Amino acid sequence: MQQRSEETHSRILASANLLFSKNGYDATGIAEICQAAGVSKGAFYHHFPTKQAIFMELMENWLSALDSGFQLMLSQTENIPQALLQMADMAGNLLVSADVRLPIFLEFWRQAMRDPEIWQAAIQPYRRYQVYFSRLVQEGIAEGSLSPADPERPARVLVYLAMGLLMQALFDPTNVRWPDEVRQSVDIVLHGMARREE
Amino acid sequence: MQQRSEETHSRILASANLLFSKNGYDATGIAEICQAAGVSKGAFYHHFPTKQAIFMELMENWLSALDSGFQLMLSQTENIPQALLQMADMAGNLLVSADVRLPIFLEFWRQAMRDPEIWQAAIQPYRRYQVYFSRLVQEGIAEGSLSPADPERPARVLVYLAMGLLMQALFDPTNVRWPDEVRQSVDIVLHGMARREE
Repeated sequence: MQQRSEETHSRILASANLLFSKNGYDATGIAEICQAAGVSKGAFYHHFPTKQAIFMELMENWLSALDSGFQLMLSQTENIPQALLQMADMAGNLLVSADVRLPIFLEFWRQAMRDPEIWQAAIQPYRRYQVYFSRLVQEGIAEGSLSPADPERPARVLVYLAMGLLMQALFDPTNVRWPDEVRQSVDIVLHGMARREE
Repeated sequence: MQQRSEETHSRILASANLLFSKNGYDATGIAEICQAAGVSKGAFYHHFPTKQAIFMELMENWLSALDSGFQLMLSQTENIPQALLQMADMAGNLLVSADVRLPIFLEFWRQAMRDPEIWQAAIQPYRRYQVYFSRLVQEGIAEGSLSPADPERPARVLVYLAMGLLMQALFDPTNVRWPDEVRQSVDIVLHGMARREE
């Protein structure tokens, strides 16, 4: 029974993801999600109190997968610049497919501009990545592989770069050579922060 | 008469801009724009065939202003890195105000994902900036102030950075110190491309 319930949960998520990406968050109704997932409304509300709740869970899942990958990279590399380049490769591979899930970011951000609760859910992982990269840069400083003036700004620049690459993948995915593009872009920023002496 | 017509045109644009930013493109009707601008529907259609046409003109105006500013910077500075830092300051000052016009980018991009015509209108300036920065980097190489392996990728990295900073300004404008943030970020990328020897 538990297994079947989890399977239903996943199916609702997958259907909602597809519909949000294809038609937008606003235009997608719960009835439509139920139909696509082949579940009753009763079953739907057993799993999710609102449409927004699905949205949140989709974002969390996506970010968790990314986090796990990053942790793996970190444990398998010798220094921070190498780890960051490996993360770039992983992110590049995520972007290469012009992932059907990417457009949902735009939906998410747009909702976040209007709804403080969604904004909180959107800004939290965003800021978390800034903190995460800042910790990596600090580790890089400690191990002597990086030497920026301060660790905060280069960390944010990595996040800016990630956001910019995400936008490229959204709008013009075929115009660059993924995942090489991500690695080489991160490499430029790494050089920029590795060799600064101020 | 000509003057009055231009004034009406500007008023429609300003009202639409405000409403799009506040309520979103989809949720804003032509009737509402007319009311906010204090013009009749007849006057509206004299100026714009569709709501989308206003949207396009808003984007074009914004980008034209940016272009003119960039040209000015370029004519007043001694070398490319200096010009890019000046452009960063200008862009930083644009972002510092958490400009009411910024949210419209999200609307624009979201529309672009669905409508090939809007996509064309969105991708054209985006690619133009990549070409523009690539030309600047080439000039930098020619004058000896920059030495990247190739001019294309660093140019794209500048565009990625710009997009990332735009997202920061949209979502978390108070969490960084503008316009310093833009200048220092561009500086990191400049260092990254200035000192590369491959």
